Amino acid sequence: MQDFRRTHTCGQLTAKDVGQKVKLSGWVHRRRDHGGLIFIDLRDRFGITQLVFDPVLSPAAHKEADKMRNEWVITIAGEVIMRAPDMANAKLTTGEIEIKTSQISVLSKAHTPPFSICDDFIEVNEELRLKYRYLDMRRGDIAQKLVKRHQVMMAVRTYLDQQRFLEISTPILGKSTPEGARDYLVPSRVHPGAFYALPQSPQIFKQLLMVGGMDRYFQIAQCFRDEDLRADRQPEFTQIDLEMSFGTPDELFPIIEGLVGQIFKTCGAIDIPKTFRRMSYAECMNTYGTDKPDLRFDMPLVSIDDIGEKSAFEVFKAQLIGGGIVKAICVKGGADITRKGIEEYTAFVGRFGIQGLAWMKVQEDGTLNSNIVKFFSPELQTELLKRLECQPSDLIFMVADTPERTNQALDHLRRKIARDRGLIDRNRYEFLWVTDFPLFTWNADEGRLESEHHPFTSPHFEDLGLLAIEPLKVRSSSYDLVLNGYEIASGSQRIHDSSLQQQIFSILQLSNEEIRSRFGFFVEALSYGTPPHLGAALGLDRLVMILTQTENIRDVIAFPKTQKASDVMMDCPSFVAQKQLHELNLAIEAQENIP
Amino acid sequence: MQDFRRTHTCGQLTAKDVGQKVKLSGWVHRRRDHGGLIFIDLRDRFGITQLVFDPVLSPAAHKEADKMRNEWVITIAGEVIMRAPDMANAKLTTGEIEIKTSQISVLSKAHTPPFSICDDFIEVNEELRLKYRYLDMRRGDIAQKLVKRHQVMMAVRTYLDQQRFLEISTPILGKSTPEGARDYLVPSRVHPGAFYALPQSPQIFKQLLMVGGMDRYFQIAQCFRDEDLRADRQPEFTQIDLEMSFGTPDELFPIIEGLVGQIFKTCGAIDIPKTFRRMSYAECMNTYGTDKPDLRFDMPLVSIDDIGEKSAFEVFKAQLIGGGIVKAICVKGGADITRKGIEEYTAFVGRFGIQGLAWMKVQEDGTLNSNIVKFFSPELQTELLKRLECQPSDLIFMVADTPERTNQALDHLRRKIARDRGLIDRNRYEFLWVTDFPLFTWNADEGRLESEHHPFTSPHFEDLGLLAIEPLKVRSSSYDLVLNGYEIASGSQRIHDSSLQQQIFSILQLSNEEIRSRFGFFVEALSYGTPPHLGAALGLDRLVMILTQTENIRDVIAFPKTQKASDVMMDCPSFVAQKQLHELNLAIEAQENIP
Repeated sequence: MQDFRRTHTCGQLTAKDVGQKVKLSGWVHRRRDHGGLIFIDLRDRFGITQLVFDPVLSPAAHKEADKMRNEWVITIAGEVIMRAPDMANAKLTTGEIEIKTSQISVLSKAHTPPFSICDDFIEVNEELRLKYRYLDMRRGDIAQKLVKRHQVMMAVRTYLDQQRFLEISTPILGKSTPEGARDYLVPSRVHPGAFYALPQSPQIFKQLLMVGGMDRYFQIAQCFRDEDLRADRQPEFTQIDLEMSFGTPDELFPIIEGLVGQIFKTCGAIDIPKTFRRMSYAECMNTYGTDKPDLRFDMPLVSIDDIGEKSAFEVFKAQLIGGGIVKAICVKGGADITRKGIEEYTAFVGRFGIQGLAWMKVQEDGTLNSNIVKFFSPELQTELLKRLECQPSDLIFMVADTPERTNQALDHLRRKIARDRGLIDRNRYEFLWVTDFPLFTWNADEGRLESEHHPFTSPHFEDLGLLAIEPLKVRSSSYDLVLNGYEIASGSQRIHDSSLQQQIFSILQLSNEEIRSRFGFFVEALSYGTPPHLGAALGLDRLVMILTQTENIRDVIAFPKTQKASDVMMDCPSFVAQKQLHELNLAIEAQENIP
Repeated sequence: MQDFRRTHTCGQLTAKDVGQKVKLSGWVHRRRDHGGLIFIDLRDRFGITQLVFDPVLSPAAHKEADKMRNEWVITIAGEVIMRAPDMANAKLTTGEIEIKTSQISVLSKAHTPPFSICDDFIEVNEELRLKYRYLDMRRGDIAQKLVKRHQVMMAVRTYLDQQRFLEISTPILGKSTPEGARDYLVPSRVHPGAFYALPQSPQIFKQLLMVGGMDRYFQIAQCFRDEDLRADRQPEFTQIDLEMSFGTPDELFPIIEGLVGQIFKTCGAIDIPKTFRRMSYAECMNTYGTDKPDLRFDMPLVSIDDIGEKSAFEVFKAQLIGGGIVKAICVKGGADITRKGIEEYTAFVGRFGIQGLAWMKVQEDGTLNSNIVKFFSPELQTELLKRLECQPSDLIFMVADTPERTNQALDHLRRKIARDRGLIDRNRYEFLWVTDFPLFTWNADEGRLESEHHPFTSPHFEDLGLLAIEPLKVRSSSYDLVLNGYEIASGSQRIHDSSLQQQIFSILQLSNEEIRSRFGFFVEALSYGTPPHLGAALGLDRLVMILTQTENIRDVIAFPKTQKASDVMMDCPSFVAQKQLHELNLAIEAQENIP
């Protein structure tokens, strides 16, 4: 049995260790023969250290070294020496030294891996990388992202502990609720025909913890949704979930700002503002056409309904008469966009149902050039230039359609132009609180109001008087935190007053029976003395993605699933023994029965 | 809308705050009328603060206070004043002061709870407490245990982070393995007829992380077993799971000793030894009859085969001839155990299949008194007294049966006597590493060897030569950590050498097809260069139970399940909509089909 215990990692030794006798263990990253000398790059998670084998000084070790192959695991003993100055590698921490190796032994040989570990510039198909996830980790990139994820989780826990939040684990085997997304179900053996459900979030549990007086709770919680996956979704995902009693958003926002600040500082060495901008949902939709604007660049959406109305441009006028709106953006310096470019942007907004994209270029003399400029009087042209703060060689894009389509199209167009024109500084972090979402939406199919979030979301305190008379105008006390166009947190104040809760239920036209069957035990819990409370959930996966500058959620998860919700490494989900199904009183439906 | 933001918690104000204007929020714990003055004990998680309402000074607040009922949530404003010295309550941090209250308002009224919150000395049926878990939390005991659990998790993470372990989350949606306990299954909608399984432990994932070069991993991991529950089991439980590369038990033990030391120090203010005793499985079984001995008291099991053999006592001799053993324990001062007491202990060992319990009392003159003493020569009596280190007024119990039954019965007897005679100091913490468990056991039904743990457990390095010739004598490189009679950790060195792995498989008589189907992708993973690695898992629930001195695992879990694996608060598991089952291609079997 070899002694494989090491004195140092492969990322540790530097010039100041010269002369030390050391033992290292790790993987053969590369082996090279140079005029009798053999060099091996020895690798572990911490770095690479160069080993040198001299046939004169250590003939036995040199002979063994010659047999080594990539990815074999070896252990060596030797002495730290300086490299010749012209052989130093400034890219490595250990680049000034090498190990004059006197002993080497093999701990574990390796088959040839299905892709190269040491040539990390070679692009490998993602499905193959996922099948051999453990080999992909050795290439360093995934490993570094997992290290970052660990650091983020440590920062979160340290900070929230200091803020008097308790981490409390809530059950994974929970109850199926017919609301929201599809549940993953878990059949019960002990209770034939009954099922647990994996939690979509710990929402009900964390509110119960507040009812129970736990005051401040958090959890880095696994959550589950059986949805058809988009590129940035996983069937299981991780949420930094928190809830506090006796506070309002004015208490919660600084806590989350501090939390995010701590994460960025300790895990990214990035200083961000101590407080984040706030903007109401209404203003945000108006200005950016979206509730998650990317503020790393400007280019706001500007309403020009009045200008459209006074113009002679029938396209705009027709939309306005039909209840539509007209909005414009100013592309700084965009006069260089060619006719072909404009056509491409027109096709682009067409994807969102927009029939045409009107444009005007601001010429050097400050006048406008466009195929439709003739429909706008000089006064309207002046007003347009002023309102959009245009300069010579800018370009104006204008869209007229329903509010929803106009906002959606211009939001996408604004972001596409920013990408195309390189307006996005990848090292900027622009945070925004979007507040006061509507409390209700109108369900036209059922002819009744629905909760925008869930029926326990508190109305905005200032709008309580509107509840009975204009419920669609009632804002909720809810908030999202947006970073660079991504929603990274979301939350709300919850209703703690049972008479207000009853009023909400009656606005939603819920019968007592419906209340009981849908929210039964939870409504009872609220009736025993509930403190005012509020909370939020932050997407951990997304935060780590932002800090590691990847767009691929699978890069920040140790063992992710594919978009078909499969683990291709373990070959899972998989078929199970008939005996297991029998114990669960389950049968697989014949395929013809499947609707 | 009231402003319910507080300046302090209810456990914070003391004499040094006298004169401060404060705002508090919390629950009405108790209300008392005393000669015109009204007193309210205001409660939150942090403590209780006494409010006083004076009808002369604040008539409006006094009038409101009169309406308050237990468990209403209120917010108040007032001034901190000293209590009259004879009214001080030394048991409370806040016991010297009270709040002269000038404003009070109700945030949330409360129905009468199903059991009293303020009379925490009243025993409440556990099923009722579980149904109203959120109210039980308010009584303080469960809340304190959850606070302790949070502290333990923080201590674990802080310590392991310092030791260069990375916390890496592994999937909850995993693959069903037919080994070990029963899996909880999760039907897949996307892959009809296929299932995920909830992990019984992250074992395979953590070994893959070592193959992937992550070096040191840990996770506070939720694990799941669909077993018929014993009193101290839950369908989901929590494990402090860790694994490291390039080490042996000599590297791992100090890390775990440091971890446990840190937990006990920071979460219990308890100093424990820096290193723990070690004992081999063989010696442990011999000395205590169990692999998890409680070392807070002595009373070892002593082998007296030779004495039995030389005696004329046919009961012992017959057992020895039939392959049985004879063992004895010495109960210090046990001569005071009555004949009735001895009968009760005889009945007690009878539960473990033992026919009779032989006894001898050591009299004041040092001679033995017993109904069977005549079968033992004076020399044998002297030898017996010497070997068991007996003193006058001690008592000897002797058992002869198969090794298994003898050890089991004397282990239980030893512990029962210790409880009965008050030998257990509840403030002592006695740790023991039990090492070198057997690698194989003999499966008599199938006539072949089986792995004691799993086939990836490494043989003891010293016993490699025995593998081919006497496999049942081969020790594994495995270890349990025992505290006060409970197994709190368990782990092993894993096999990293593929030729050794092949040898183990052939000893287990596994065909290549069996290897592939049972361990397929994992065996492949080991073939690409696997570092020597080892690990362990500690039971978090058990650690918190020990630190909070409870025997009930449900006390240390926020929302536990009953022994029928139900959540009686949420009424879960529960029946789900037919539509949900259809989407999963599942049908519930008719009851008559259930075998």
